[in-house]
This record gives sequence, structure tokens and C-alpha cells, in this order.
Amino acid sequence: MRPIRYYYDLMSQPSRALFIIFRLSGLQFEDCAVALRNGEHLTDEFKQKINRFQRVPCIEDNGYKLAESVAILRYLSAKGKIPEQLYPKYFVEQARVDEFLEWQHITLRITCALYFRQIWLEPLLTGKTPSQQKIETLRQHMEGNLDIIEQVWLAKSEFLTGSHLTAADIFAACEIEQTRMADYDVRIKYPKVRAWLKRVRQSCNPHYDVAHKFVYKISGTGPQAKL
Amino acid sequence: MRPIRYYYDLMSQPSRALFIIFRLSGLQFEDCAVALRNGEHLTDEFKQKINRFQRVPCIEDNGYKLAESVAILRYLSAKGKIPEQLYPKYFVEQARVDEFLEWQHITLRITCALYFRQIWLEPLLTGKTPSQQKIETLRQHMEGNLDIIEQVWLAKSEFLTGSHLTAADIFAACEIEQTRMADYDVRIKYPKVRAWLKRVRQSCNPHYDVAHKFVYKISGTGPQAKL
Repeated sequence: MRPIRYYYDLMSQPSRALFIIFRLSGLQFEDCAVALRNGEHLTDEFKQKINRFQRVPCIEDNGYKLAESVAILRYLSAKGKIPEQLYPKYFVEQARVDEFLEWQHITLRITCALYFRQIWLEPLLTGKTPSQQKIETLRQHMEGNLDIIEQVWLAKSEFLTGSHLTAADIFAACEIEQTRMADYDVRIKYPKVRAWLKRVRQSCNPHYDVAHKFVYKISGTGPQAKL
Repeated sequence: MRPIRYYYDLMSQPSRALFIIFRLSGLQFEDCAVALRNGEHLTDEFKQKINRFQRVPCIEDNGYKLAESVAILRYLSAKGKIPEQLYPKYFVEQARVDEFLEWQHITLRITCALYFRQIWLEPLLTGKTPSQQKIETLRQHMEGNLDIIEQVWLAKSEFLTGSHLTAADIFAACEIEQTRMADYDVRIKYPKVRAWLKRVRQSCNPHYDVAHKFVYKISGTGPQAKL
């Protein structure tokens, strides 16, 4: 049995989340970096042989191909590859982490990703910058969800689902870090998010900083400047 | 031990999906209908006592509150309340269903929901109709994902993740049915989706039609007219 193949790009938020989780878990994997910027995921070969949805992250485990970061986390957890501190085995505790992982898709993830995409990526690709009104709308949608992180998820606990780090925190932090590249500074309005991000980074380092090296470089801010 | 309390509105796509799954599973639940149209989910009492995110569906299981439809499905499956035909227990098969359930959030779900919302719901609430250009953009985004359902998910099998109905099919069908209310007819361009929807309905009835009674009524089409 060879180790799993992990296809990822550190510019992709869920790719970073799994990268950090794998490193924290001591999981051996074959490093298969995919350069999204060069369209390596858009070839017919990638579609046929690696991921029919032409996205990262994805894995191949001795012939079994699986996409979608949260599904991959659960699969590897069921195989005993992820410590239960990061993804609980007891179903009542697991449901709390699942609740966050399911909640984040069309709330935190989509709005942070759109903010990054339309303010940083699209202008780079097309040369066109969005209007002030558009930026404002994107910001409001994103902050609506950051408000919920600050006021609901972090209302009573040090981490999103309780008193210690889980996969939920890592997925959330990677989404929020993405907005740095579009010059958004989450620290200004969100003191709880700021302190929590610091805890997440400390709990995950040195892997957190390795995963975010391109984010730090592009945003022109080292981790110290931001956290 | 009393049965779980199920908070839902049949106008909500994931509420219908769980409703159908519960009925197919023979799960006893206390029926707690929430009228979104009357803002019953927006009260302080709902936030404090039922769901801190003020959404449906959600459950309360003898004091344990849980939101997010996919998390609820997994929790009840772990409690042995969902037959493994609908949500597999073997982790390799479970990962295939999870892959779909994770994939759909920011693809099929968000684009179908936005199409419904902006073409049917917003005009009803505000009296303003979207421009033709806006409608066209919403349609293109949605059809990009319907293309993937037709060409990738249904490429080789009768149901989304294999030869029999699972929770994945039920979640997907409920999202697609929502667009009927905005007068979208998925049958026209998508013959595989059409035939699959018919199979899903047949496999789930009578519960499918009960769950969709308001969808049929509002769209002015009975199930026969559409499938």
C-alpha cells in the first residue's frame, strides 16, 4: 500500500486546510502540487485521471479517487488517519464539528472567496477593477458572516466548537486568511476573531505558516504584521 | 426519551430533503412547522431557544440542538435512525455520498437558490423584477451546474452515486424542484436529469409529493405536468 496522493495548490483555501490537517496528523502523502495559475487542473488528462470536477483539493488512495475537502477529511478519519482531537469520533461531538463544516460553505466560504476573487483575482486576470459600490456589497456580505463568527461561534468558547482546536477552526481560518490578499484586515472590527486566529496559528505551527507562505508573500504581510 | 423535534418549512429545500428522508426512514418526530413567510425564525425566542442561526431545518433531540441539514443526517445516521441504503455505513461508500453532499453547497444549491430567490421571491417582496441580463446571468450559473449533474454525476449511473437512491439524490432533487416556482423547466435541456428526477420521485413517494405540495401549488403544475 503506497501513501495517498494529495493534489492541491496552496492558493486554494480548502487545499491549505487539508495540508495543515495532514501535517498535524503525521499523515504520509505523496505531494502532488497542481498549479492552478497555469491551468493544470483544466486539462483533459486531469479530468480523466485525477478529478472529474477539475478542482483541488482531491486525493487518490490506491485507485480510489475522492474530491471535496470535507468528504476527504471524513474518509481519512474513518480510516483512522486523523486524530480524534481534530475530528471527533464520538458522534455527538462530531456533529458539532460537522455543523460548522456544513454551515461555512454558503456563508463564510462563499463570501470570503468572492471578496478575494473579485477584488484581487479578477482585476489581475482582466485588468478591470470593480466599482466602489460592488466592493461595498461584497464587503457587507462577507462581514455579515464574520459577525456570526464573532458573535455566535466564538460567543462562549476559545475555538469554534469548544475549548480546543478542531478541523472546523482550520477550515475557517484558511477562508479568512484568503481575504488578506485583497487587503482586508479582519482584525479591525473583530477582536474575538483576531485572538482566535492567533490561537489557531499557534496550535497549527509550523504547518500553518508553511501553508500560508504564498498568502503572506502576496499580501506583503508576514504573520507578525497581521496577528 | 421523547422523539426528536423537527423544525422545518416545506418551502425550504433542505427542510424538504430531511422531511422525505425521515418519512422514508420511519423516524418518529414531533412536527414543528416554522412559517418562514411570517418571520417565525426571526424572533429572539427562536434564536435563544431553537436555533442560534435563525434558520431551518434544525432539530432538538432531548436537549441537544443541531442545525445544518447534512450534519443532522449524519448525526441521526450515527444513532441508527437512517437506513444504510439512504446513507451508507461503510466509509468508502459513505464518502461517495459525502462527496456529493459537500459538492452541492456552492454549486447546485447556491445557484438554484439564487435563481428562485431573485426571480420569484424578491419581486414578491419588493415589487421589483430583475433585468433580462440579470436573469440570463443567474440562468447561466445554474445551468453550469445542471450540466455537471447531467454529464458527470449521471454519466454512468441511474442515481447520483450509484445504482440506487441515497440521501444525495433527495437533497439534489429538492434543490432543483425549487426552480419550478421561478418557472424554470429543467426537462427541456436535461433529459438525464428529467429521467432521474422521475426515478427519485417514484422511489420516495408518497413522501416526495407531500413534501412538494406547496412547490406544486405555487408553480401551478402538478407532478404529472412536470415529470
